[in-house]
Amino acid sequence: MVIILKKPSDNSIDMGKAEELKYSFEIELEVRDYELDCEQIVNNANYLHYMEHTRHKFCQEVGMPFIEMHKAGIDAVVRKIEIEYLSPLKSGDKFRSCIALERRGARFIFYQDLFKLSGEKVSQAEVTIVVLKEGKLSKGEEIAEIFADYL
Amino acid sequence: MVIILKKPSDNSIDMGKAEELKYSFEIELEVRDYELDCEQIVNNANYLHYMEHTRHKFCQEVGMPFIEMHKAGIDAVVRKIEIEYLSPLKSGDKFRSCIALERRGARFIFYQDLFKLSGEKVSQAEVTIVVLKEGKLSKGEEIAEIFADYL
Amino acid sequence: MVIILKKPSDNSIDMGKAEELKYSFEIELEVRDYELDCEQIVNNANYLHYMEHTRHKFCQEVGMPFIEMHKAGIDAVVRKIEIEYLSPLKSGDKFRSCIALERRGARFIFYQDLFKLSGEKVSQAEVTIVVLKEGKLSKGEEIAEIFADYL
Amino acid sequence: MVIILKKPSDNSIDMGKAEELKYSFEIELEVRDYELDCEQIVNNANYLHYMEHTRHKFCQEVGMPFIEMHKAGIDAVVRKIEIEYLSPLKSGDKFRSCIALERRGARFIFYQDLFKLSGEKVSQAEVTIVVLKEGKLSKGEEIAEIFADYL
Repeated sequence: MVIILKKPSDNSIDMGKAEELKYSFEIELEVRDYELDCEQIVNNANYLHYMEHTRHKFCQEVGMPFIEMHKAGIDAVVRKIEIEYLSPLKSGDKFRSCIALERRGARFIFYQDLFKLSGEKVSQAEVTIVVLKEGKLSKGEEIAEIFADYL
Repeated sequence: MVIILKKPSDNSIDMGKAEELKYSFEIELEVRDYELDCEQIVNNANYLHYMEHTRHKFCQEVGMPFIEMHKAGIDAVVRKIEIEYLSPLKSGDKFRSCIALERRGARFIFYQDLFKLSGEKVSQAEVTIVVLKEGKLSKGEEIAEIFADYL
Repeated sequence: MVIILKKPSDNSIDMGKAEELKYSFEIELEVRDYELDCEQIVNNANYLHYMEHTRHKFCQEVGMPFIEMHKAGIDAVVRKIEIEYLSPLKSGDKFRSCIALERRGARFIFYQDLFKLSGEKVSQAEVTIVVLKEGKLSKGEEIAEIFADYL
Repeated sequence: MVIILKKPSDNSIDMGKAEELKYSFEIELEVRDYELDCEQIVNNANYLHYMEHTRHKFCQEVGMPFIEMHKAGIDAVVRKIEIEYLSPLKSGDKFRSCIALERRGARFIFYQDLFKLSGEKVSQAEVTIVVLKEGKLSKGEEIAEIFADYL
């Protein structure tokens, strides 16, 4: 599936310019009312929950459950997040949470975008993950092997 | 669907005694890793989130979305919760969240039980809801009409 | 400090009848706006967070930090919660979170009540904790010793 | 108070280069155990909660409580967040949550940094807020007046 979107790494607010990006994984989610705040839109922090859950489902699919990795002494840790909030999620909204993956040396960049089923883009983010092995920064080789088909 | 269970209102810890209860609504959910706490089991507060989400899905199904009710000046408010934690939910667990409904005058009692897909009971709760109309305690007549088929 | 209150175990809604209870520990907290839901009152699940945080501060004070216990193979686990919601917490509210402790064999009962600084009671709860040692139910002797002055 | 730090807008991972920034507001917070995830560090989403709470306390101090603004038809909405996670928060950690404010036309940039009481930097973020008036993007003039002393 190919979708036109602007990479989050382009910091301009203007959504006009766009380039193609292929998503390698996605799940469908639905807003839960307890995620709404007093403005009756989903609180900004919950988007990070949605994205984390999507990454963990992705790790599960590639045969690398997060908890198992943790028990094996390998921790994928969030190093940086850039997220743009484009259109608020509200009660009852269903949305697709999409991932495109890129490796930059020891860092793994997850481009994570949310779209309402109507196609409207909700948010776009660039999440930088580093891998700790027994608490020490790793070059991420073993992870890269497992992700190979998605890079 | 009929399932054997002990009503939460019976406070004995012993799970032996059981009576039949018919559930009128249920959804399937899955643990999200951000819901786990440092003991790697789902934090006790998240069970209330699961149950609230299930009640709201139920209200949606009977044609009474929670937010719409709120905008119409009708607020269903949690008055009391009794919950027993029987078997912890862990990473990757999928579970059924079930509701049986009962009316007691102005109060609506939601018997809400969670079961792993294996059939093991996770938790059982009795949630007491009262209805506020323009901020004042209501007799819940209009709600009762809508719930009629489920009482 | 002595405060008049009704034990949560008394299920009557009427707040008239009261008996004395001594609290052995309390902290002051303040509502954070992200804890509000779309009705602009604190979501019911956050009360369990407030109470858990209070119990952990209590364990810390008696020299038994929760995480240290966990690392030592001792886990205090919530077995049951009964909570009554009496008066909603709103944006900006400051409140006292109070604990009175009781032991019943292998179970520890935390009576946990919240009060606005105005004195109005927000909620009252009875939280039943059991102690797991290396994953097995313990008689809670070692915990009881540490709690001795508060029982 | 003056603290040396690198602006989050400088995206390099290297923390060496630094420039001076004056914080105009800060509060002290403490990790709550329910904010930890299964890696026993504070979950990445909770940092956004800490920062939002700090912004709301700031708005409260300048005499513009968030909820009052909302009721007056003025909503401050998060448009973009860039956050770097430098050193994980763990159980029992106390930290300072600091704000430096800047205006860029209709957008307000909150530089928000967290520091352990030891002085170690926990995270640094750049949060872009836009102001909606009756749901329409505003030039933020009225807000700017109130923030004047802090810009």
